[in-house]
Amino acid sequence: MIKIALDAMGGDRAPRAIIEGAVWAVQEYDCRIVLVGKERNIKKFLNKSDYPKDKIIIKHATEAIKMGEPAAATVRRKKNSSISVGIELLKKKEVDVFISAGNTGAVVCAGILKLRTLPGVERAGIGIVFPGLKQSYIMIDAGANIDAKPLHLLQYGVMGSCYCEYMLGRRNPSIGLLNIGQEESKGTGIIKEARELFEKTKLNFIGNVEARDVYSGKVDVVVCDGFIGNVVLKVSESLAEAASSFLKQELTKRLLPKIGAILSLPAYRAIRKKVDSSETGGAPLLGVDGRVIIAHGSSNAKAIKNAVGSAIGYVKHKLNRHIIEELKKINV
Amino acid sequence: MIKIALDAMGGDRAPRAIIEGAVWAVQEYDCRIVLVGKERNIKKFLNKSDYPKDKIIIKHATEAIKMGEPAAATVRRKKNSSISVGIELLKKKEVDVFISAGNTGAVVCAGILKLRTLPGVERAGIGIVFPGLKQSYIMIDAGANIDAKPLHLLQYGVMGSCYCEYMLGRRNPSIGLLNIGQEESKGTGIIKEARELFEKTKLNFIGNVEARDVYSGKVDVVVCDGFIGNVVLKVSESLAEAASSFLKQELTKRLLPKIGAILSLPAYRAIRKKVDSSETGGAPLLGVDGRVIIAHGSSNAKAIKNAVGSAIGYVKHKLNRHIIEELKKINV
Repeated sequence: MIKIALDAMGGDRAPRAIIEGAVWAVQEYDCRIVLVGKERNIKKFLNKSDYPKDKIIIKHATEAIKMGEPAAATVRRKKNSSISVGIELLKKKEVDVFISAGNTGAVVCAGILKLRTLPGVERAGIGIVFPGLKQSYIMIDAGANIDAKPLHLLQYGVMGSCYCEYMLGRRNPSIGLLNIGQEESKGTGIIKEARELFEKTKLNFIGNVEARDVYSGKVDVVVCDGFIGNVVLKVSESLAEAASSFLKQELTKRLLPKIGAILSLPAYRAIRKKVDSSETGGAPLLGVDGRVIIAHGSSNAKAIKNAVGSAIGYVKHKLNRHIIEELKKINV
Repeated sequence: MIKIALDAMGGDRAPRAIIEGAVWAVQEYDCRIVLVGKERNIKKFLNKSDYPKDKIIIKHATEAIKMGEPAAATVRRKKNSSISVGIELLKKKEVDVFISAGNTGAVVCAGILKLRTLPGVERAGIGIVFPGLKQSYIMIDAGANIDAKPLHLLQYGVMGSCYCEYMLGRRNPSIGLLNIGQEESKGTGIIKEARELFEKTKLNFIGNVEARDVYSGKVDVVVCDGFIGNVVLKVSESLAEAASSFLKQELTKRLLPKIGAILSLPAYRAIRKKVDSSETGGAPLLGVDGRVIIAHGSSNAKAIKNAVGSAIGYVKHKLNRHIIEELKKINV
């Protein structure tokens, strides 16, 4: 049975939402969950829940890394944090996957330091599944590596392509390089070199894509360095929040729009569901020798349950094995 | 009287929307407009319009640069394009401002090549006024310079701050450096160095801001390199389009949401007005020795009219003189 370590201390709503998510997950999926964190805190919530007792166990960790703490320094200092202990379980192969909604930097840092990378992978990258206009797609890297070299970008393309093929069931996924224009002459030296590397491969590389194409779903895999990817992600969140605030203000100003808004609620709910991060199942840290899934900091129980679901897919589809094989074929 | 050269051939709706915008502008503002482009095409539309004849004149240019053409090469090849001719008028001080809704890269390229930079400015940058949640703010650079050095970023801060103070009437504008986290330790070497430069000045520098703060209106001036700025801009446009498409699909699926949508129309219109690029008056190319305003490619007549309005403010508020003076005070 697949065994998943879950950081019980990570995320804005931890430990409650994490534990509720774990309980939900073992009821829905055939898996065992190891809740990593302060035993007393975990028991406080777990004891109130009804679940198959053999499917959730607790692994005590004395410390927790907070959301704002500097990643690298804190990972080194807090040796017994829930993140470090969870990654350690993964390294010793006591679990198949580690999931955390905690400090993303710390998860990336601990993952890279302790697990190292898969054979052939130079740098790990965070893959994020976005809802496109036509279909969802993956962007990689969303923030693990802010100084990406051309070879790293190429490998992100391979890893993203494997994710799309095996996890999203997309055949021969198309790959685009995020750039400020579509022409070959555009972009920084690193991007131009990455483009040349991609063109030497048999990957389904379609060239540069602009940020304006990001939500149009023009490609299956959008490749970029971690700085840019992080900006894409955060701007999207920021704009979505601002737009819904604007809308709320305007809709409640007068009576008719207010009635209109109430009648339109199902439509808003459908959209919220489409862009809701709790539906996506978390973002994989691709390229490390182990399976790490980063859930959104605001994860609720449902987001955690869905992250467990995608963790199970990660194991079943043998994603890391496919990544190793595809990288061997690249030969750059 | 202020004299403005307007690229009649630039933009998705040129020349018609440009000419209609020019006619509208001379009716609303006290200015003269020089329409630059193919005389016959311009006359075709202008002859149908009713306007004070002495306030619009035509300057013939034999060529037009299309939206997709590579910027630098085309500017060099098409010596008599409407963009080059317009910039040339500006250089010879025959006009006070040049406005184009055409190929942004070509406008930037011609502007930098022919006008050079203001005393003390190392690189020009595009400033974009964004609608924030609380108030609008300026982001610089939105795509003129994709390899910004720390000093360029500092100067963008100064130029953006002047724009905010004199054009938006904001006192002592706050400046933030766009980064992947707020901590000092975050970001690339270039950003860290820029941060140190900012801290040595008396500017109202508040440190790093994250892309998630971009729409919250936390700062008055967001400074970033042109690649990142372009990504912020394009992702925003892409997401806004995708969101409104999703919404339209969902709202028209069933009857009640459809009725709701109709009742809510005034609210949608208010939001559209808030984010509509035709309301903003175009983006200044700050730092060149001359006044260049880049209007959105999709500009309609209203956007052009508003760009003329902001061009007049640009001249009246002596923005470039303030930029030169503020840069002298920096002393880095």
